[in-house]
Amino acid sequence: MSGLRRPARRYPYVDAGADIYVDSFATIRREADLTGVPADAEKVAVRMIHGSGQVDLARDLVVHPGLLAAARGALEAGAPILCDATMVATGVTASRLPASNDVICLLNDPRVPDLARAFGTTRSAAAVSLWEPMLAGAVVAIGNAPTALFHLLELILDGGPRPAAIVGCPVGFIGAAESKQALVDLAADHGIDIPYVTVLGRRGGSAMTSSALNALAQEAE
Amino acid sequence: MSGLRRPARRYPYVDAGADIYVDSFATIRREADLTGVPADAEKVAVRMIHGSGQVDLARDLVVHPGLLAAARGALEAGAPILCDATMVATGVTASRLPASNDVICLLNDPRVPDLARAFGTTRSAAAVSLWEPMLAGAVVAIGNAPTALFHLLELILDGGPRPAAIVGCPVGFIGAAESKQALVDLAADHGIDIPYVTVLGRRGGSAMTSSALNALAQEAE
Repeated sequence: MSGLRRPARRYPYVDAGADIYVDSFATIRREADLTGVPADAEKVAVRMIHGSGQVDLARDLVVHPGLLAAARGALEAGAPILCDATMVATGVTASRLPASNDVICLLNDPRVPDLARAFGTTRSAAAVSLWEPMLAGAVVAIGNAPTALFHLLELILDGGPRPAAIVGCPVGFIGAAESKQALVDLAADHGIDIPYVTVLGRRGGSAMTSSALNALAQEAE
Repeated sequence: MSGLRRPARRYPYVDAGADIYVDSFATIRREADLTGVPADAEKVAVRMIHGSGQVDLARDLVVHPGLLAAARGALEAGAPILCDATMVATGVTASRLPASNDVICLLNDPRVPDLARAFGTTRSAAAVSLWEPMLAGAVVAIGNAPTALFHLLELILDGGPRPAAIVGCPVGFIGAAESKQALVDLAADHGIDIPYVTVLGRRGGSAMTSSALNALAQEAE
């Protein structure tokens, strides 16, 4: 380490990690309208806003009233986290997980390309079918592919295993808004009530998805 | 693979991966105002918008006119990509890299905690100092920590090695907007002209940063 020295300060910025978190969360609580968020999921909303840099994310957030209890309970009991994208899995802070939970992404599993071809769908969606043996009671985290969320809902509607909770935040221009609306409508349309958090519209992504997981994993900010 | 079958289709959605990309990029080109983006960097802007799900990202994008030539040239010559966060590194598509370029994140290097303590700064910033031996001519990708971007600028202003190009898109509420403004002002304020792309304001993040890298790596959409 000899030879390395901090360069001269030229800009006035906060350089204490803990202060940055505290100031960030205070800014979010000051600016964001969280009235639509269940009280016990407020920290989930704050972290998702933090990951996106946008306080107006609050207006598109939909949080099922049972989300926190279902996801926290499942994680404390050792449930795995099933992710659609490696970036989501990478964003989960291992030290926050209450039971050294497995964080699993099967997108690069060698079976996926053939399965996607056989199914006539995307690799992201095909990988969801490989979750089946682990899916009952798991926490699902979809932060990239709308097709993964649609495929999951179709798997459940076909009588497949039901996860304990779904963080469903795919991003983009084709199918993202529609897949998240289908998640919100699952209970009303089909009588299947699985706790979830989602962001209506096109916004979403791996950062806000792993941020939600990190808040669900434990209470400490 | 026996036993796995595609669940019954219940929702009308596009499930062909190639079509999703084509339709997404067409939607972005139809809706986004890209007039402020240099012509040769249009695909970079489109990919960043794609990664964020927001066409109005275009209004906050600032792309240096020399970005594409500098970054593409560096990558084709084998330059490494230096990332502030593991999520950024994870988001780089290896098959798009023109010279099997190294994609490096040193945030979890064992030297970082002590260095951060000695410097009195964040781990993200301290890790930037560990880039020094590789920094000259590299492509830098900062998609998370404002302190990493400030630290990089201070390192350069101290006479340190200069990267070939900077993707500078930290996200958040404390220092993000200021660090990106400092990047934009580097040439005017200090006479150091390094090509960059950034997003003014609080928005940013690992997804749009790795999206930019994937567009800079090769021309094919």
